Amino acid sequence: MSVKNAFYAQSGGVTSVINASACGVIQTAKKHSDKIGTVYAGKNGIIGALTENLIDTSKESDEDIAGLLHTPSGAFGSCRYKMKSLEENKVEYDRLIEVFKAHNIGYFFYNGGGDSADTCLKVSQLSEKMGYPIQAIHVPKTVDNDLPVTDNCPGFGSVAKYIAVSTREASYDVASMAETSTKVFVLEVMGRHAGWIAAAGALAADEDNDIPVIVLFPEIEFNQEKFLALVDSKVKSHGYCSIVVSEGTAWPDGRFLAEQGTRDDFGHAQLGGAAPVVANMIKEALGYKFHWAVADYLQRAARHLASQSDVEQAYALGEAAVEMAVAGKNSVMPAIIRTSNNPYKWEIGSGNLADIANVEKMMPMDYISEDGFGITAACREYLLPLIEGESYPPYKNGMPNYVTLKKELVEKKLSEFKMK
Amino acid sequence: MSVKNAFYAQSGGVTSVINASACGVIQTAKKHSDKIGTVYAGKNGIIGALTENLIDTSKESDEDIAGLLHTPSGAFGSCRYKMKSLEENKVEYDRLIEVFKAHNIGYFFYNGGGDSADTCLKVSQLSEKMGYPIQAIHVPKTVDNDLPVTDNCPGFGSVAKYIAVSTREASYDVASMAETSTKVFVLEVMGRHAGWIAAAGALAADEDNDIPVIVLFPEIEFNQEKFLALVDSKVKSHGYCSIVVSEGTAWPDGRFLAEQGTRDDFGHAQLGGAAPVVANMIKEALGYKFHWAVADYLQRAARHLASQSDVEQAYALGEAAVEMAVAGKNSVMPAIIRTSNNPYKWEIGSGNLADIANVEKMMPMDYISEDGFGITAACREYLLPLIEGESYPPYKNGMPNYVTLKKELVEKKLSEFKMK
Repeated sequence: MSVKNAFYAQSGGVTSVINASACGVIQTAKKHSDKIGTVYAGKNGIIGALTENLIDTSKESDEDIAGLLHTPSGAFGSCRYKMKSLEENKVEYDRLIEVFKAHNIGYFFYNGGGDSADTCLKVSQLSEKMGYPIQAIHVPKTVDNDLPVTDNCPGFGSVAKYIAVSTREASYDVASMAETSTKVFVLEVMGRHAGWIAAAGALAADEDNDIPVIVLFPEIEFNQEKFLALVDSKVKSHGYCSIVVSEGTAWPDGRFLAEQGTRDDFGHAQLGGAAPVVANMIKEALGYKFHWAVADYLQRAARHLASQSDVEQAYALGEAAVEMAVAGKNSVMPAIIRTSNNPYKWEIGSGNLADIANVEKMMPMDYISEDGFGITAACREYLLPLIEGESYPPYKNGMPNYVTLKKELVEKKLSEFKMK
Repeated sequence: MSVKNAFYAQSGGVTSVINASACGVIQTAKKHSDKIGTVYAGKNGIIGALTENLIDTSKESDEDIAGLLHTPSGAFGSCRYKMKSLEENKVEYDRLIEVFKAHNIGYFFYNGGGDSADTCLKVSQLSEKMGYPIQAIHVPKTVDNDLPVTDNCPGFGSVAKYIAVSTREASYDVASMAETSTKVFVLEVMGRHAGWIAAAGALAADEDNDIPVIVLFPEIEFNQEKFLALVDSKVKSHGYCSIVVSEGTAWPDGRFLAEQGTRDDFGHAQLGGAAPVVANMIKEALGYKFHWAVADYLQRAARHLASQSDVEQAYALGEAAVEMAVAGKNSVMPAIIRTSNNPYKWEIGSGNLADIANVEKMMPMDYISEDGFGITAACREYLLPLIEGESYPPYKNGMPNYVTLKKELVEKKLSEFKMK
């Protein structure tokens, strides 16, 4: 088997640990120099391949590559770009092959979520459909935790930890203020389709922390009457109440809570969030003073509070992707297989991309409590191992010392390609 | 000198380190058992004194009291309640003296900001004006960093660290997405009158991190045209831009940016935040895709990311307050005196409450860059020591193990007092 170069790219929304997977891919590829030459990273994801903007990772120092393990975001740049099917957009696939040929690329590692698994699947079919020998391996990543086959997705555990910790901290705060001031705190979290992240807010409470947390899931139609009654009862029993609302929470008619339907003085529709809507609704119905927060990117970028499990798994999946490639695999994704909850044990398995692409794993309904506003013991058992352990980055001058790569580009060999 | 009991209370918005001051007060009082008997903590601040709801801190375990050092929020409950002058509301001062007498209280430690210093000052005058012997010492606390005399206020350093780190992390995130998606990230932070917290966002950038951060201060009239031009130039030069906006940022006519002037379908005024207003303004004028976050309570409760300087100073000021009391002082506040920037050195000094109560320390104008959208080198030099060091709480099951006190109340000796 001759030595081939590898292409690696980051895709979709980034996370606090996707660079740990990159680190796993690059460091493991180096151990297989008999099969893998240079790892070229796509500048801004797959777009880097199409435009022949290839970052030569061998030009980065070993120290900087190791530093990816503790650096959030996508160090090579990511993109939101879903390739159409071969039939619909043959010109892009032709171009990919042209770039792969020009740079002797025989391995394709794609690090992303469901849409990206679909792109990876299409690339994996290039050998069969277009005669270009390539092995395409998908490396899972998504804070949404919605990929099938794998027990969980790198990126999710750290967001879950951030939301659980933040909800606990803010709840302690509100509890202190409730007597004369704020009685309700609302935190808006990510997860347009699946309530995994919102569910993590419920971990703020446990046997040592009697915190009244109400969770609003995208999976459950919003029932305003039941919700307000529950808020009122929590404030009456505990003096305060914390609410974790998924950005995807919707009314029975499908409209998101976040769509306020308001217009400014010029008649423009106003974009708000779900949190202020929920907070104002409570103020109006129950009169309780509120505060609200929207975590947005803070939650998925919070490498300072990453889960140790998450960082380890992100690295291990990057490593496993390379091992699968050198073992001759194509069109697969390494996956986390949970073998024990207590103590938590996991191993690496794998799935076929055909079973993964475009399949969304929703929260099982038995993870949501009967009233629709909390999580079950089974859900807690599932979530807790994923937030286990603290993986702190190094600090310099009071700030996390994240790595910024040089991102030196390989010399182009082809003519320019116009992106549509 | 006979043994007298002490009263301690937390006041105003809580912080991630106010309990560290409580820990300093309680542990130090124990060392002076020849002068100080029991420390009674007000349940929900000064209201606890008025209603005779006194928490007996001697009933808490030593372990739990030590745990206050790493527990955010106000463990005894806080309140927003400013006492009127003696002339206006003599009945409350009479009641305070009645409660102090009933429980042999000779020391009054009040842990709060500017309004609270005012209350503490009034209590300190009870000896002189009403003949009840009491020593009142103020322990400074406020995330707003706006108390005079002291170099900085406990609570601020940790918020500053949280905002600086969060801005850096979110900026790394946006930088990865900017090519095909989000180009502008807006983070709203606390500080209605003073821009200290917003200023900390600028620490996201440094010599190793070329991050384009724009800060909107409450001290600077919002100039939309200049602002939009700067955002555009940053996006053009760096591909993206991060904006840290203080909740107190206002238009030249004094209206807060956060007042959107919008109404919902029922004609109710909508409460939003400054962040969505700024984000939508950019989208409309420049067309850039945005994300926004509102940190709200998360920033001041984030004990998981507290600054080591801040925790040490919070404890030291509680300790110093007790030392001042046993030394016979009244109507004073221990303060941080900075003696060197590099290496950072500080010591404890003190100020008179008459010079502190109701005085707001604004950002010096030479801390704000000439264009009004950033900080100067002098400001950076001031801020950096305050975020120095990481003081991590202990974790259990992946979550910070914060302390919840028993809060056992002392038996009441007086008749009920009706709060107004």
